[in-house]
Amino acid sequence: MIPVLDVKAGLEAENEIYAEEVHRFCKDRGLFLINLMGSPGAGKTSLLTEILDHLGADHSFGVLEADVDSDVDARTVAAHGAKVVQLHTNGSCHMDARMTLEGLKALEPDLPQIVILENVGNLVCPAEFDVGANLKLMILSVPEGDDKPLKYPLMFTVSECLVISKMDTAPIFDFDVDRCLSHVRALGNQMPCFPLSVKTGEGSDEFLAWLKEVVA
Amino acid sequence: MIPVLDVKAGLEAENEIYAEEVHRFCKDRGLFLINLMGSPGAGKTSLLTEILDHLGADHSFGVLEADVDSDVDARTVAAHGAKVVQLHTNGSCHMDARMTLEGLKALEPDLPQIVILENVGNLVCPAEFDVGANLKLMILSVPEGDDKPLKYPLMFTVSECLVISKMDTAPIFDFDVDRCLSHVRALGNQMPCFPLSVKTGEGSDEFLAWLKEVVA
Repeated sequence: MIPVLDVKAGLEAENEIYAEEVHRFCKDRGLFLINLMGSPGAGKTSLLTEILDHLGADHSFGVLEADVDSDVDARTVAAHGAKVVQLHTNGSCHMDARMTLEGLKALEPDLPQIVILENVGNLVCPAEFDVGANLKLMILSVPEGDDKPLKYPLMFTVSECLVISKMDTAPIFDFDVDRCLSHVRALGNQMPCFPLSVKTGEGSDEFLAWLKEVVA
Repeated sequence: MIPVLDVKAGLEAENEIYAEEVHRFCKDRGLFLINLMGSPGAGKTSLLTEILDHLGADHSFGVLEADVDSDVDARTVAAHGAKVVQLHTNGSCHMDARMTLEGLKALEPDLPQIVILENVGNLVCPAEFDVGANLKLMILSVPEGDDKPLKYPLMFTVSECLVISKMDTAPIFDFDVDRCLSHVRALGNQMPCFPLSVKTGEGSDEFLAWLKEVVA
């Protein structure tokens, strides 16, 4: 008998164990962890700095900046007052729970109350890896198109809040929020949805008020 | 001694063998294969139909539509006169050479002269897998931002032609083609770059004329 090793299942099982550990780490320390996901250029960093600027007075923030390479976003985020750890995934297309735990530990000993993990820009792989976060927050940007839930169903299935960004460009890109949401609902996901524009400020208040409640 | 298996290296070595087979398959049949890559919503399908509409009179076309799920793009493309094979990657975030070979064989016996593989929308993983194509064509859309070569360097390193799409929105998104290109050149890539807008037609002629030469 030649032993057969199902490597992917192995990796996933390992990830689940680490996700449970991340979950315990956060619970024990009263830390709220947000897993922020979206395509390259969807506006993850802009939303992140918007959150820091508006909730930073009431809460201390940490940010785990996952990037295949570079520290462009980490520098931007640090300028908005958060404690930042740059995580280079060395080519990996997503963050997993083990990497997240490493990042959280790098924020010790003065742990912030809320940590936002800015995942790698990708609508596929990050959806497959539960990092043990309290909130899976995803951004879809208007220029990507309102049909994306049809093409990247897992991301729109596992997420717990949908921000639709760059709403000021909706007329240019013929983006229909209702059409987009009907695709999301067809996947059985009833998550709240916040269409907004960081540029014009439209819709930001509603999202920030909601988030304030969630992290309280 | 416990044997250690480097699974990723194994997969990559296997992919190289299949890529060589794809290359031979295309060469033997005089077929030109284009690997079209870019983020979700970058405009891959729009560029593809633009190519079909303008080069379709002189060449027969086939399209391999890689999608995690759904057949939205396949139906769009079929309406533009290409022979289409829908490839469901079942959650995989990229096409590899073995899957590409399967797709090409599904186009037989009446093979077209040019086959375009529309890869999964993703700036990370598809860059790691050589599918044996004659041309690696990538799209970056203006709304994604001109800093993307800094954050997804492998894609901008391996690609052989860069199309910058949705140029009509450059003023809105403060996208600077020269700044973007300087990042690309810093990676040591001298590939041609075509800023264009399928919507306004700006820049399309230059790209299509270039492509006509390449596939001739």
